[in-house]
Amino acid sequence: MGSLDTPFPESSQSNFKPLDPEEFRKQAHQTVDFIADYYKNIENYPVLSRVEPGHLLNRLPTTFPQDSEPLEEILKDIQNTIIPSMTNWLSPNFFAYFPATVSTAGFLGEMLCTSFNSVGFNWLASPAATELESIVMDWLANLLNLPKSFKFSGTGGGVIQGTTSEAILCTLVAARDRALEKVGRENIAKLVVYGSDQTHSTFGKACRIAGILPSNIRSIETSFDTEFSLDPVRVMQAMKADIVSGLVPLYLCATVGTTSSTAVDPVNDLADVAERFGVWVHVDAAYAGSACICPEFRQYLHGVERADSVSMSPHKWLLTFLDCCCLWVKNPVLLVRGLSIDPEYLKNKPSESKSVVDYKDWQVGVGRRFRSLRLWLVLRSYGAGKLQAHIRSDVQMAKAFEALVVADPRFEIVVPRRFALVCFRLNRAGRVDSVDDLNRKLLDSVNSTGRLYMTHTVVGGVYLLRFAVGSTLTEMRHVDAAWGLIKEKADVLLGGVYEN
Amino acid sequence: MGSLDTPFPESSQSNFKPLDPEEFRKQAHQTVDFIADYYKNIENYPVLSRVEPGHLLNRLPTTFPQDSEPLEEILKDIQNTIIPSMTNWLSPNFFAYFPATVSTAGFLGEMLCTSFNSVGFNWLASPAATELESIVMDWLANLLNLPKSFKFSGTGGGVIQGTTSEAILCTLVAARDRALEKVGRENIAKLVVYGSDQTHSTFGKACRIAGILPSNIRSIETSFDTEFSLDPVRVMQAMKADIVSGLVPLYLCATVGTTSSTAVDPVNDLADVAERFGVWVHVDAAYAGSACICPEFRQYLHGVERADSVSMSPHKWLLTFLDCCCLWVKNPVLLVRGLSIDPEYLKNKPSESKSVVDYKDWQVGVGRRFRSLRLWLVLRSYGAGKLQAHIRSDVQMAKAFEALVVADPRFEIVVPRRFALVCFRLNRAGRVDSVDDLNRKLLDSVNSTGRLYMTHTVVGGVYLLRFAVGSTLTEMRHVDAAWGLIKEKADVLLGGVYEN
Repeated sequence: MGSLDTPFPESSQSNFKPLDPEEFRKQAHQTVDFIADYYKNIENYPVLSRVEPGHLLNRLPTTFPQDSEPLEEILKDIQNTIIPSMTNWLSPNFFAYFPATVSTAGFLGEMLCTSFNSVGFNWLASPAATELESIVMDWLANLLNLPKSFKFSGTGGGVIQGTTSEAILCTLVAARDRALEKVGRENIAKLVVYGSDQTHSTFGKACRIAGILPSNIRSIETSFDTEFSLDPVRVMQAMKADIVSGLVPLYLCATVGTTSSTAVDPVNDLADVAERFGVWVHVDAAYAGSACICPEFRQYLHGVERADSVSMSPHKWLLTFLDCCCLWVKNPVLLVRGLSIDPEYLKNKPSESKSVVDYKDWQVGVGRRFRSLRLWLVLRSYGAGKLQAHIRSDVQMAKAFEALVVADPRFEIVVPRRFALVCFRLNRAGRVDSVDDLNRKLLDSVNSTGRLYMTHTVVGGVYLLRFAVGSTLTEMRHVDAAWGLIKEKADVLLGGVYEN
Repeated sequence: MGSLDTPFPESSQSNFKPLDPEEFRKQAHQTVDFIADYYKNIENYPVLSRVEPGHLLNRLPTTFPQDSEPLEEILKDIQNTIIPSMTNWLSPNFFAYFPATVSTAGFLGEMLCTSFNSVGFNWLASPAATELESIVMDWLANLLNLPKSFKFSGTGGGVIQGTTSEAILCTLVAARDRALEKVGRENIAKLVVYGSDQTHSTFGKACRIAGILPSNIRSIETSFDTEFSLDPVRVMQAMKADIVSGLVPLYLCATVGTTSSTAVDPVNDLADVAERFGVWVHVDAAYAGSACICPEFRQYLHGVERADSVSMSPHKWLLTFLDCCCLWVKNPVLLVRGLSIDPEYLKNKPSESKSVVDYKDWQVGVGRRFRSLRLWLVLRSYGAGKLQAHIRSDVQMAKAFEALVVADPRFEIVVPRRFALVCFRLNRAGRVDSVDDLNRKLLDSVNSTGRLYMTHTVVGGVYLLRFAVGSTLTEMRHVDAAWGLIKEKADVLLGGVYEN
């Protein structure tokens, strides 16, 4: 935007330059220092925010400013009002959900991605954004030892989505449209999808978005017997029953590392079943996929070569910041058939030549950012070696925490640990409380200190505490201190009765 | 991630600290300077990339690195390999598509958003991210003079989506599920949606994703008679015909500022029609919505108070960088009903109290970034005054370009200019070429210089050139130079025959 000879009402503001390079340089340096200081002091902030609903609403103006405000004022508000109202995900004492991991390289990649603001909906709109994404998707496929059938260098290909939800939705649409071509477009109400009661709840949401009848979303029960993994025999029974009822089995979501307890579904055995019925198999390895860059964990992806698609989220465990979910498909043509648009104003020679990838046809939206830069910087800056070391270090810390739990007779491990999540609980009720209530109280009393944040889940009817190791800044001293706090609160709750 | 006593294979790497604050500070400063220099020198790069497909694929290694590489090496590759393969969207000579605008404040907001990596799927997971988003959505609603029925301070509410596609998809699911509750879940194949042949093609894509039969997506013809806006009479006819056929009119997408030629659909008159049939009205103001922060453009949103939802994308014209599409809905309950998930591991007291917003239930995905920071920084840093001045300056430059076109008898304005897009073309064919071919050649010869980038479209069967003013760094001198280049190439093409 520039100055003009023609005057207009706010003539004093006609020289407004929203992106003056030297002003940019100055303010961006200032903000870098603000952020570096935040990281330096992060242990001083409560992990779980302690504010009440409406806290920020009551402290920030509800009308927009008419005039400019200086950066200093804004940073002051962030320091004094925003940060205290945040749940600090990057705190080393964050053990909730799954950590969302970050790194300096990831941050720089994101800065560069932002700075170019390149809108790579098709190849021509940004050849670099498109080709770099294809390159890093093949790199990561190599690192995960995925077969050639998922790689551009083979017969498949990969794309970066924002979330697993989008990865599932896009592949589901591809599978759905393939099926409807056979059984008739009007028969969408006959399509059935399969997951377990441990499959991420976003699976059901994606299915509902794609028009699958809610009553046709099978959530197959799991139990302690299979450590909460999906039983292929039950899947077979469900699919057979649906066919008998005149329905059409469509899509199976197998999970490698479930959200509640990191259960691993037997991909290969499930593929045996799916194959019989022509069902699309998607492998959701959002969390545990990152671990599979280490040869000792790769076994959990056994059978992935038989799936139609697989996704994993480097924003969970590969240091990339949000949002970065990698999706590979064996047959990109099906994806493109379900998701392509071709308006006149986007027509161009490279697209018409079919010699390029147009990523707008691999996702829900049209516009897209230069997301691959982040992953590329992480992979290049750290190399496979450091990334593997990082995964192993987190797993070691989780093992160490597990050992602490096992050594205390008041506690029990509820589900075996596979990766860096420990599922545990106090195993004895107090005089008046049920075990569930006791653990609920323990969780509340620990979290309310602001000194750490853990979450809970229920599997097989059992309420348990989840201790997810892996926040980027976490060191063994934080794990030790966390255990100390948990024990201290347990002592109080149990009135010292079971103290060892 | 920290050091451990337990040794593991890569023990030399066990001290890997992906986010050391001082290393972060140093490298982030280095990258800020790299970016500021890019902005400073941006006019030296070709606007439209001139590389051939496979350029980057042939120049970057296809195997991932085993070891770390220094930042200097990576930045060198970005400078020498990535940037020359990019289409430089932020070049002041970018007049293609619609510009994607940026600002220093937007960049700082994005840095802060990234740095916190706060995953605000529900209120508890980041109270600040949730509440700030609600605040800025109300701010922007005020700036656009939207009625209380779209604001949290009234009875509605707003959410930041990544793209218009997602905004349409989410509201479509809400509308669809409301309709199916009445007519029966199994009747999805009876639902019909309405747009014009100028509606963004992503509308059809969203409808297909949501399971609407492709044959039930009405693309109503527009013409020069209405300046390519959607004719309510034709919509009425289409809806009546569908009802006679036993179908169920569901959703109407009205556009304020179409992609091809910035046509404006008559929202109020369309709402009259939609109301008769209980059809959900969505207003897509992706591009022109930003202009409506100026009172003189607000008229184009006339009737929005009768819509069920409205979206506009500050990443197009309000300086926020990608991705930032603002969606307001009148009845958040319907959105939540269509998109909510409620797994055990996300259950928490504030959500159960229903006193908070859980944004995971307002979007396709579950995870989400602290996107509101960007918009908040832009609104606070510049205030309404500068943002309005910025819109007006772009419109003035487009007017000036229009005047240059009008003054040259070889050219014509094809569709009246409303905002900052000029739709024009050479109006006389050469000896052998058709007018369309001539304009195609003109576009190619201009774009292939790398000195500017424009795109084309076809409306009413007419091939035309789109000159979209508004890239953040564009000043009047760039517009003048662009016109100079266009004239120069026209001279060559026409062999000087029509030179004035």
